[in-house]
Amino acid sequence: MNVAFQLLVVLSGPSGVGKDAVLAGLKRLRRPFHYAVTTTTRSRRQGEEDGVDYHFVSQERFQEMMERGELLEWAEVYGNWYGVPRQDVKQALERGLDVMVKVDVQGAATIKGIVPQALLIFVAPPSTEELQARLRQRESETTTDLKRRTETADEEMKQLPLFDYVVVNDMVDQAVAKIDAIITAEKCRANPRVVEL
Amino acid sequence: MNVAFQLLVVLSGPSGVGKDAVLAGLKRLRRPFHYAVTTTTRSRRQGEEDGVDYHFVSQERFQEMMERGELLEWAEVYGNWYGVPRQDVKQALERGLDVMVKVDVQGAATIKGIVPQALLIFVAPPSTEELQARLRQRESETTTDLKRRTETADEEMKQLPLFDYVVVNDMVDQAVAKIDAIITAEKCRANPRVVEL
Repeated sequence: MNVAFQLLVVLSGPSGVGKDAVLAGLKRLRRPFHYAVTTTTRSRRQGEEDGVDYHFVSQERFQEMMERGELLEWAEVYGNWYGVPRQDVKQALERGLDVMVKVDVQGAATIKGIVPQALLIFVAPPSTEELQARLRQRESETTTDLKRRTETADEEMKQLPLFDYVVVNDMVDQAVAKIDAIITAEKCRANPRVVEL
Repeated sequence: MNVAFQLLVVLSGPSGVGKDAVLAGLKRLRRPFHYAVTTTTRSRRQGEEDGVDYHFVSQERFQEMMERGELLEWAEVYGNWYGVPRQDVKQALERGLDVMVKVDVQGAATIKGIVPQALLIFVAPPSTEELQARLRQRESETTTDLKRRTETADEEMKQLPLFDYVVVNDMVDQAVAKIDAIITAEKCRANPRVVEL
């Protein structure tokens, strides 16, 4: 009954919803977990650190990782590639740590297909208007980007039933507290999710 | 997605595990819920208040409630009868409140049969030895009672798979915090439990 088990927590949601802010909030809590840093071919945004926010790699290196089966899942999002390194996730789970990954909605769906016991959390915007406002605040976004991301977000909302939980990111601290509660609750499940990779 | 819904939380577990202490702790939290007081034919223990801890009724009145369909579930436990008043639960849910009931393991199984969307939490002892020690502290227990309750507890542990969550009541504050987290998490489910009575 008290068998220890590790969770694979998949944090997802539309672009601009605030996944990074939520993740930063989770890292500030005392709960230990391993964040599996995503590998990407996209260019670094201001304030982002290689190996912390993403592993920034070339197209060639990414292609190689795909071919060698080094990625748990990968996806092309707005012309850039993103992937979750498999070994990193596997080793952390084996060390007895919960693992958190941050992926787009397409990536979350892929992971659920590969690892049905993964715990999928959809971070949702309070409203479409609010999501647009947040995207506009990103200096890196062009008007075309904005339109495209808004359209994709509408599509992504349709993927909700795939997810285990939905957390509306209105106040980030509240969203973080809810995700923390979800992890606590999942540790109490009578039929625990046992992840196998 | 943000449709409000109410939970029917069923708090259960072996006799002597500390369900009352856990319930008292939950009542002290800021989260509003309605506690549906159980009706019983058993005699009042010291410190118990009629209408707060239980509705204490006669065998005749209990029989009448059963016959009139006034009880959501009822069970005989160690020669006494216990039942959850249906109208009380129904009305609180209709008023938009989460409802909590405290029942024995047999009662929890019955409720799950009637209300599959009920949220079942099994409060478990840290160990069988600890459970016996707690029962011994109850001055109301005779040696025969103690033996009988310990045997029943072993049987009850086998019902675990029926439950949604298991919370070990080692430190009561931690158990309360876990149950609070479970309720928070359940409110975030992508496929919410919609209770119909």
